[in-house]
Amino acid sequence: MHIIEGTVILKLPEASSEVLLIKNLYLSCDPYMRILMTQGASSYIPGSASHSMPLTGYGVGRVLESGHPDYKKGDLVWGITKWEEYSLVSSDQTLFKIEHTDVPLSYYTGILGMPGMTAYVGFFELCSPKKGEKVFVSAASGAVGQLVGQFAKLAGCYVVGSAGSKEKVDLLKNKLGFDEAFNYKEESDLNAALKRYFPEGIDIYFENVGGKTLDAVLLNMRSHGRIPVCGMISQYNLSQPEGVTNLANLIYKEIKMQGFIVSQFYPLYPKFLEFILPHIREGKIAYVEDIVEGLEGGPAALVSLFSGQNLGKKIVAIAPE
Amino acid sequence: MHIIEGTVILKLPEASSEVLLIKNLYLSCDPYMRILMTQGASSYIPGSASHSMPLTGYGVGRVLESGHPDYKKGDLVWGITKWEEYSLVSSDQTLFKIEHTDVPLSYYTGILGMPGMTAYVGFFELCSPKKGEKVFVSAASGAVGQLVGQFAKLAGCYVVGSAGSKEKVDLLKNKLGFDEAFNYKEESDLNAALKRYFPEGIDIYFENVGGKTLDAVLLNMRSHGRIPVCGMISQYNLSQPEGVTNLANLIYKEIKMQGFIVSQFYPLYPKFLEFILPHIREGKIAYVEDIVEGLEGGPAALVSLFSGQNLGKKIVAIAPE
Repeated sequence: MHIIEGTVILKLPEASSEVLLIKNLYLSCDPYMRILMTQGASSYIPGSASHSMPLTGYGVGRVLESGHPDYKKGDLVWGITKWEEYSLVSSDQTLFKIEHTDVPLSYYTGILGMPGMTAYVGFFELCSPKKGEKVFVSAASGAVGQLVGQFAKLAGCYVVGSAGSKEKVDLLKNKLGFDEAFNYKEESDLNAALKRYFPEGIDIYFENVGGKTLDAVLLNMRSHGRIPVCGMISQYNLSQPEGVTNLANLIYKEIKMQGFIVSQFYPLYPKFLEFILPHIREGKIAYVEDIVEGLEGGPAALVSLFSGQNLGKKIVAIAPE
Repeated sequence: MHIIEGTVILKLPEASSEVLLIKNLYLSCDPYMRILMTQGASSYIPGSASHSMPLTGYGVGRVLESGHPDYKKGDLVWGITKWEEYSLVSSDQTLFKIEHTDVPLSYYTGILGMPGMTAYVGFFELCSPKKGEKVFVSAASGAVGQLVGQFAKLAGCYVVGSAGSKEKVDLLKNKLGFDEAFNYKEESDLNAALKRYFPEGIDIYFENVGGKTLDAVLLNMRSHGRIPVCGMISQYNLSQPEGVTNLANLIYKEIKMQGFIVSQFYPLYPKFLEFILPHIREGKIAYVEDIVEGLEGGPAALVSLFSGQNLGKKIVAIAPE
């Protein structure tokens, strides 16, 4: 990644399929972006990055000029944009008009955007959690994990999170309401750690990391367990992913393991907003953000996700609101 | 395993929870039995074997004496029995009265018993196959696999099976109606083999073997693919299972991977019989059995499953019908 400076003309090109000119305000750092950079998984998300183009990703912006009847100058939007100060975006990409501005605008990169929907869909839609069930979340202080834990508490579940520093563990226990949390880097035996926190086993494992953690979790799942597979961040930077050896537990324990891409569920976004907005307004759900200022800090911000140096949802603030 | 000879009294003990005395006619050799012998997975199936007791497993028998109102002397039954000539069985174990005797009685260890239900549930109930979908079955000539392939053809799917010998591959293509079949032992690159047979990818993978095969399949699944996890026979004799490295494909391809235990689905057995019996009677579904005579051949028969020396459903015939 490198920063390129240049001059742009702030005008919609004519006869273009890109119908909005927007000023980017916030850009979102998300682990899936790493996958697109190596695998070119063009089906994973539309408009994946290539080497000579700005990075593609989620962001929040303000419409400067609109060629689409649903949008007008001054509208705030969130969706797929590019890592640059001004972007031409197409309305056939993921794009939502922001209707509620009594909450922080940056939230539309997180709790009110793709990560929020991811936590909601993965936990509620895919797992159908029941009161009293035991939930384990990895990468638990991240953009998605911190919400899964809070959703689990709202659903009456017992929830434990794992994270990679004392600061994160404190956050989980003291601010985000997890029942327990542990620093996986301090556990030489993950299987033993899980047995300690889940003596009766795990009903729902919200999978964000893959590899060794998944392998230990499989030994500790209960019958009819559910594993929504949201991400496997521990594996994205490996040339050879770690082997998972305990998959036969899927059979013995009748486990459903389901990968998902949140964009398939965007028709549920209005339902999600109805659920989440009151909780935010009433202070019943917290959201921890880690904001860096300026596009020039973007590359380091994105890279920080993979060494776990972020604390909460990592965002690049591009311009004042 | 060893054979023990002794004298038994052919009479129901009084005040016993075991309410039927049966003469075993056929015993079923099934891969899951291997798991019980090492892991003592008592929740996997009731009445798992211990070292000093006869092996527990599925079989077909005739009632000699009944202490239960639903059964009478002379009734034929299938369900969980023991590897011995005569057994005391409890009606709270899996036990079905055999109502249809115009088909081979041995079929109740296979196509009309647990393996048949396994193929039916795993393929139809868990996968909801659609016409034209591409189906891959491993251990395809086995007790379950040979049925999954035939069910896939009935559902209008394209189906390819893998097996471990030329004889099995011929059986799949020439007798069981698979579109294609290959000998996995002759493929140095399973990924390449799957790309050859599935240039557009796999919609449904019926998982019977685990390990390297699963890893190659994950690279070749299509979006919204389904993997019912029925068994992982390649792994049961390993002290350290093979690592599966391509699980991140679950995410990119939104794959559902679901382990299941067929006994949970036994309430569907009457519905299954309605489906399968006409197909058997009209000769539209074939079933290949590999029968050895005499209890003394039982241990070798069971072991043969794990080296793939069986050709079709392996059965031990204990007594003449």
